[in-house]
Amino acid sequence: MFRHYKASSLLRQTLVGRTSVSSSLNCASAPQIILVHSQNRSYSKLNQDDVNHFKGILNKPEVAVIEDLEGTGSSSELSGYNTDWLNKLKGNSKLALRPSSTEEVSQILKYCNSRQLAVVPQGGNTGLVGGSVPLDDEIVLSLNRMNNIIGFDKNYSILKTQAGVVLEKLIEYLEQFGYMPPVDLGARGSCHIGGNLATNAGGIKLLKYNSLHANTIGLTAVLPDGTILDNMRALRKDNTGYHLKHLFIGSEGTLGVITEAAILCPKIPAAHNVALFALDNFDKVEEVLRASKDYLSENLTAIEFFDSESNNILKDHTKHRNPLGYSHNYYMVVEVSNFDNTSTAEENTKIIEDKFFGLFEKISTVIEDGVIAQDSSQREAIWNCRERIVEGFFKEGMTFKYDFSLPIDKFPVFLDKIRDKLGDHARTGGYGHIGDGNIHVNASIKGYDNLKLFKELQKELEPWVFSLVEDYEGSISAEHGIGSFKAPYFELNKSNKMVSVMKQIKGVLDPNGIMNPHKLFD
Amino acid sequence: MFRHYKASSLLRQTLVGRTSVSSSLNCASAPQIILVHSQNRSYSKLNQDDVNHFKGILNKPEVAVIEDLEGTGSSSELSGYNTDWLNKLKGNSKLALRPSSTEEVSQILKYCNSRQLAVVPQGGNTGLVGGSVPLDDEIVLSLNRMNNIIGFDKNYSILKTQAGVVLEKLIEYLEQFGYMPPVDLGARGSCHIGGNLATNAGGIKLLKYNSLHANTIGLTAVLPDGTILDNMRALRKDNTGYHLKHLFIGSEGTLGVITEAAILCPKIPAAHNVALFALDNFDKVEEVLRASKDYLSENLTAIEFFDSESNNILKDHTKHRNPLGYSHNYYMVVEVSNFDNTSTAEENTKIIEDKFFGLFEKISTVIEDGVIAQDSSQREAIWNCRERIVEGFFKEGMTFKYDFSLPIDKFPVFLDKIRDKLGDHARTGGYGHIGDGNIHVNASIKGYDNLKLFKELQKELEPWVFSLVEDYEGSISAEHGIGSFKAPYFELNKSNKMVSVMKQIKGVLDPNGIMNPHKLFD
Repeated sequence: MFRHYKASSLLRQTLVGRTSVSSSLNCASAPQIILVHSQNRSYSKLNQDDVNHFKGILNKPEVAVIEDLEGTGSSSELSGYNTDWLNKLKGNSKLALRPSSTEEVSQILKYCNSRQLAVVPQGGNTGLVGGSVPLDDEIVLSLNRMNNIIGFDKNYSILKTQAGVVLEKLIEYLEQFGYMPPVDLGARGSCHIGGNLATNAGGIKLLKYNSLHANTIGLTAVLPDGTILDNMRALRKDNTGYHLKHLFIGSEGTLGVITEAAILCPKIPAAHNVALFALDNFDKVEEVLRASKDYLSENLTAIEFFDSESNNILKDHTKHRNPLGYSHNYYMVVEVSNFDNTSTAEENTKIIEDKFFGLFEKISTVIEDGVIAQDSSQREAIWNCRERIVEGFFKEGMTFKYDFSLPIDKFPVFLDKIRDKLGDHARTGGYGHIGDGNIHVNASIKGYDNLKLFKELQKELEPWVFSLVEDYEGSISAEHGIGSFKAPYFELNKSNKMVSVMKQIKGVLDPNGIMNPHKLFD
Repeated sequence: MFRHYKASSLLRQTLVGRTSVSSSLNCASAPQIILVHSQNRSYSKLNQDDVNHFKGILNKPEVAVIEDLEGTGSSSELSGYNTDWLNKLKGNSKLALRPSSTEEVSQILKYCNSRQLAVVPQGGNTGLVGGSVPLDDEIVLSLNRMNNIIGFDKNYSILKTQAGVVLEKLIEYLEQFGYMPPVDLGARGSCHIGGNLATNAGGIKLLKYNSLHANTIGLTAVLPDGTILDNMRALRKDNTGYHLKHLFIGSEGTLGVITEAAILCPKIPAAHNVALFALDNFDKVEEVLRASKDYLSENLTAIEFFDSESNNILKDHTKHRNPLGYSHNYYMVVEVSNFDNTSTAEENTKIIEDKFFGLFEKISTVIEDGVIAQDSSQREAIWNCRERIVEGFFKEGMTFKYDFSLPIDKFPVFLDKIRDKLGDHARTGGYGHIGDGNIHVNASIKGYDNLKLFKELQKELEPWVFSLVEDYEGSISAEHGIGSFKAPYFELNKSNKMVSVMKQIKGVLDPNGIMNPHKLFD
């Protein structure tokens, strides 16, 4: 059933010899390029008249960051808008605009569309797939001044907010009502809710609270021609015509700009606690997953896993220590919540303890070891074992970061194949949202700190990796999106017919192609 | 804030005099037509060559129901395909095709598209808005032979099924695994899951389990040109490009035909019970709603309401009796579930009883009266009080049936305005999914059993009613869709800009306009 890649040994030689092997990999169907930076496009060049026009729209000097259009000046602030979070892309935009209203966004886009000026919408710029920065000299349309929370309606549990509000600010705001956003992720301190929506961000809460497609009740989006699609009536049920909001959720800024949203928010559980389990093989990981879903049911609010190499990376590069040590093959974090907010603190502790003991009874012969947090600091310590792995890999060195959906039982064989391909020079870890079939694969490769060398290797590795995901009938992006990094592989993972329909829709909503060029589509 | 309609007394006169008053209502902005039946269209006429071609595709004589093309013959079976469930529409289709595979649907549509033959996709034909039957001589594409359940993956809680499976069959199938579909509705014994998807059907479970947009993981849809969009990989998370499945969910057969789906299914609760409350004013209804959501939280699996006139209709025309009698203004059904499937039956009873008693403590001074079911027959009896109201209205006489989303606090004033408009000749009841802000308004009007008279009155009433919904910032369809009945009012309730984008998308996917003509768009 699975395609074999006999050339894998060649890649190992590459790693040893650090020479180019552009024809060595036997994966004919996969594309060979990795970035679409600075391709020929038919966009206009920004001129001083354009800048003056935008200043007229925004009406205040501080709302635009402009570099000398002749290229002699340089703005360090603009550099931030040009650089992605992974520091792998560096755009050449001369202008970042910071509107504060949907109306201003509309005027900006209308003008850009008429002048054929390319635009990159940018939220918190925390994306991991090179989707939120210019690849060339596109204008950056930053949402960071659209940071007003509109309000929260407790009767309907619906939050209304502008798109540029930082997720953590929403978490803090909703807390006073006893509610929380349905989405949470590591970048919560920087990412915008608008960016979360534009990328359909996932995270640890998705298992329990479902996706942003499920929880977005209303949306305002601005089309490239300036048309404002206002669907903020925020009715829980509204079956009148095509549900257009879903086109914008996950469209990565290629169809328009999300400026406001109405989001269904769950109550903060009355109490929660976490346990950490150690397991010696993946069959047992799956067994704990099944038992947890089956037994804990509505009370299971997160279930995550990581493997031994991820655990070692954590130890080597961060201050966080795994209370179960470093001798096991797999680890799982299980979070249990109690939603009965009339119980006392003591009752809550007892209720959750009972749930965990009930689960233990079912998996006592399956797990090697396990701990339950005794207080909030231990809860944090357990979560850090899972959430700080990413930090460890950053410190280990230049890292290939992948975000796949795969049939869960294929996780170990998939990781083995990658390790086999990369050989001893790489440290490859797998971790992620196992309850959703979402694995993050991180591979750090010693000696490849030089971006040029890294990109050469990337050209060899990625066609093979993405083909492998396709062979396993997975998705090359579970939650991060396509951006520019995966754009060349998008059509490998999606049927031609579906891509063709997507391109038709792009053509209808953005006929001049000004929105986030070369993102999503190559 | 609200527009006043001084002409309301004129409508009363109409009801008394049964004369036409086409210019009497003062609602200038609303359209005046109600049905789009038999308008001029540029479709081809079905001929014998077409029929022979379809017979070749389907390869068995019993898969097509054909009336004599010269119009002299008559098939009672074909009559069923031509008539809607409310018996308000009667189409003139000569041909119903019953393919059994996605491939056959593709071949049929491709041919129809090339020949410019109009097509009405039809599931269980239980819709309430005239969306699933021909308005003229469209070919009926029935999904009733695509009735295979593909399977259920318990690891991911994902059901895969063909579109023509009756909902009740899915309920029975999933029961063996301890799961259930995330959607349920009164028509469960006849409606197809494909029709549920095409109309984004709601129902009593939406409050707890969210919509079909939220729970549909994969979909196969066939475009008018025969293109099969197969997105059945059924990964819990897949952020690769535009999420096209959402275009088809709720599109009412106007973009293509849904042939298969993968649906996330919740576990059947370990136990559940229902209570019925009586209340003397609507403020108290809202108070019980708030208290139930707040206190019962994850354990609240349904909350419904009905008013005294709905209750009286139930008494007058059905065998079902309200255990709280007939002297109260409002009634509420509250369902509580327990998800802990390791508890014994006795423990479950106690857990749920405790939840209800906890709720009682909070609302004891609010409710007039209340009962908790003591066994399954009492549970059924309570649910019948709410679910059989629709049957009562049917028996009362010709009924206007509306399905609105409104701000909950506007429910009573909205009902009052309708009663004021219709006068003493009508019996108007309000009931529905109060937790979602979804009210069903039924108005039976004595003496208007004649369809012609009914339609005359409809022409007077509906522009006013739908304008009123717009004034209250509601939706003219919460869960039933637009179909043909509400098509003339669709653009009244949705911004021109949104409708324009919808029409552009329709134009891209169905350029010849063969799919379900005059449904959704007028």
